[in-house]
Amino acid sequence: MISVEEARARIIAGLAPVGAETVGLSAAHGRVLAAPVLARVAHPPADVSAMDGYAVRAVDGIVGAQLRVIGEAPAGHPFGGAVGPGETVRLFTGSFVPAGADTILMQENATAGPGGIVVNEAAVAGRHIRGRGQDFAVGDVLLPAGRRLTVRDVGLAAAGNYPWLTVFRRPRVAILSTGDEISLPGEAVGPGGIVNSNSAMLAAFVAACGGEAVVLPAAGDDAAAIAAAAEAARGADFLVTTGGASVGAHDLVQAGLGAQGFALDFWKIAMRPGKPLIFGHMGAMPVLGLPGNPVSAYVCATLFLAPALAALAGLPAGAPVFEAARLLGSLKANDVREDYLRARLDWQDGGLVAEAFARQDSAMLKPLAGADALIRRPPFQKALGDGDVVEIIRLVL
Amino acid sequence: MISVEEARARIIAGLAPVGAETVGLSAAHGRVLAAPVLARVAHPPADVSAMDGYAVRAVDGIVGAQLRVIGEAPAGHPFGGAVGPGETVRLFTGSFVPAGADTILMQENATAGPGGIVVNEAAVAGRHIRGRGQDFAVGDVLLPAGRRLTVRDVGLAAAGNYPWLTVFRRPRVAILSTGDEISLPGEAVGPGGIVNSNSAMLAAFVAACGGEAVVLPAAGDDAAAIAAAAEAARGADFLVTTGGASVGAHDLVQAGLGAQGFALDFWKIAMRPGKPLIFGHMGAMPVLGLPGNPVSAYVCATLFLAPALAALAGLPAGAPVFEAARLLGSLKANDVREDYLRARLDWQDGGLVAEAFARQDSAMLKPLAGADALIRRPPFQKALGDGDVVEIIRLVL
Repeated sequence: MISVEEARARIIAGLAPVGAETVGLSAAHGRVLAAPVLARVAHPPADVSAMDGYAVRAVDGIVGAQLRVIGEAPAGHPFGGAVGPGETVRLFTGSFVPAGADTILMQENATAGPGGIVVNEAAVAGRHIRGRGQDFAVGDVLLPAGRRLTVRDVGLAAAGNYPWLTVFRRPRVAILSTGDEISLPGEAVGPGGIVNSNSAMLAAFVAACGGEAVVLPAAGDDAAAIAAAAEAARGADFLVTTGGASVGAHDLVQAGLGAQGFALDFWKIAMRPGKPLIFGHMGAMPVLGLPGNPVSAYVCATLFLAPALAALAGLPAGAPVFEAARLLGSLKANDVREDYLRARLDWQDGGLVAEAFARQDSAMLKPLAGADALIRRPPFQKALGDGDVVEIIRLVL
Repeated sequence: MISVEEARARIIAGLAPVGAETVGLSAAHGRVLAAPVLARVAHPPADVSAMDGYAVRAVDGIVGAQLRVIGEAPAGHPFGGAVGPGETVRLFTGSFVPAGADTILMQENATAGPGGIVVNEAAVAGRHIRGRGQDFAVGDVLLPAGRRLTVRDVGLAAAGNYPWLTVFRRPRVAILSTGDEISLPGEAVGPGGIVNSNSAMLAAFVAACGGEAVVLPAAGDDAAAIAAAAEAARGADFLVTTGGASVGAHDLVQAGLGAQGFALDFWKIAMRPGKPLIFGHMGAMPVLGLPGNPVSAYVCATLFLAPALAALAGLPAGAPVFEAARLLGSLKANDVREDYLRARLDWQDGGLVAEAFARQDSAMLKPLAGADALIRRPPFQKALGDGDVVEIIRLVL
């Protein structure tokens, strides 16, 4: 048995970002940039007015002065001439500031009359003007490679004049559930059978992590069937199996994959739930064998599959983010296996508290769905009491 | 001018969830349940073994006892007979427990020999058996209506034997950018023009909130063009416009929508950025008019459009979640307008600190993309100094 940390390091070690693709801006949200975005235009593209008002020369903007309105320049319709002494041009928010003018007199600070305006507040040079390139100049790095694009980033790339962006393509993750006992939801359940929850759950997990899930037809407990299904996964960037990973005589995943040239890296980790984790390669394709129990599968996906997907997608890959919380209740001393307890979170006296569920069965999905967090317990952690600080991972997926 | 709180309440007041649709389980992640999910099967479907081992009668499981192996029952292949005195059946994780047996002897605690096993650790009734329905029984509420489905929820619904789920359909949100000055990213920019960032940004925002964005062709500053574009939005659940909402003579959104029977609810709110917000109805369709400056548009989307989408999508709708942070630096006293400052967050001495950017220009997208949070300042809030507590909204979209 190896440690959780070592297992994660060995899984991530051989992974590199998948290739890039070019996608329309409207499809880029949530994707990871494969190349930096450098501004193709300046923003604003020229000195523009930040207000509705009048373009004036600051030297003319004296209280009581009368200025002749020589034109109007709505946004998108710049004034062709220049503002001379005693002159002004009517502007609106976003209008380009005409030549000659060096400040904006807000319309609230002017009285408009026939042919001209009277200045009611002294003008100050540069006021209410957004200078050309104030937000960014041509060539400025707007967004670095490796960034997962937020809604705001999409807006920024648009402003930088990008209709297309180059992003890492979604890693293709094949999912293979195994077991004679499983059937798909809604299909006939055989004698001694159970409904398969792992395929649908893991497909959603992969998609939520930015991957593209390829759900393979489930394979029975038969080495040849598993070999055939695994063969169909060739070309995927990553293969995830569930079930068939423990010590039972009917655990055939390794046998089935072996026929396809599976090279084992490790099997079994010092962790609960999830001890029978398998990792290896089938040719160049990494293979992660998750336990069949859905809670174990989900916890292992959180600890190992999510970082693997990050590495494939061009994002920083590593341990999940841990936060500190105070324990509600008590916990016995831990044994050799790193433990991940399903827990609920709450706020008490302005601080985060975490309470482990009384029952920690790795086959129970309902408490998993209701959990807010996992409490991490390192190997051999001493007994903990009320108020002791614990490490937690928030469950958002 | 009305307050932010009143504006949000007036927007949400008239909104009801859109209709439901039935989607395949594989498409259900992130959707909002329109009906509760009641378990169609029990989980586990029968008493099952939690270990690889032997089904025995606890009374027989005495250290040193020899038990005759009368069969083997892998998962999916239940044993047809019953376990009698002195007998045992070989089981694996997930195997149904045969009649007669009432406990599982782990294989590590038995020595297998020809025709039988020797018990090495005393059996305890019920141990290592997951009872039928231990996770859930038939008819149990697995997931309530109104819940946005997580990855785990998808797994739970699968285990409950649901191949389809009934969810609220995605609210259709039409997006209309206006202005003679705007062009789409990558298209030719006219004289005095600027690239439109709002359409792409808002489309991503709507999608991130679970809606379906319908981006209308941009309309120039012409009442007839705006009227025609708005007419094309009929049938949408919600219309969002940008630009043309301030006091300039070229602000034609109200005029253009008026031709389509627009009934104004309110115009202008006591907020910075975002003062010229418009809300009203075109027939039954709510219309939210956002300012043209992208930062104002984004902040208003966070405060008003996100709750509106939640209400349409069947989720609880209200103010964003505020967290407390300590201010880094100082802020002058606030005026009558509720203020939302772009800020970065950091951790110091185990606590969250927020520092407002020095420049708070509502046309600057680059600092918006780099912001971690908005600092909320209520109207007339006094001057604040280093270490004072402020309310923040984390920016995750």
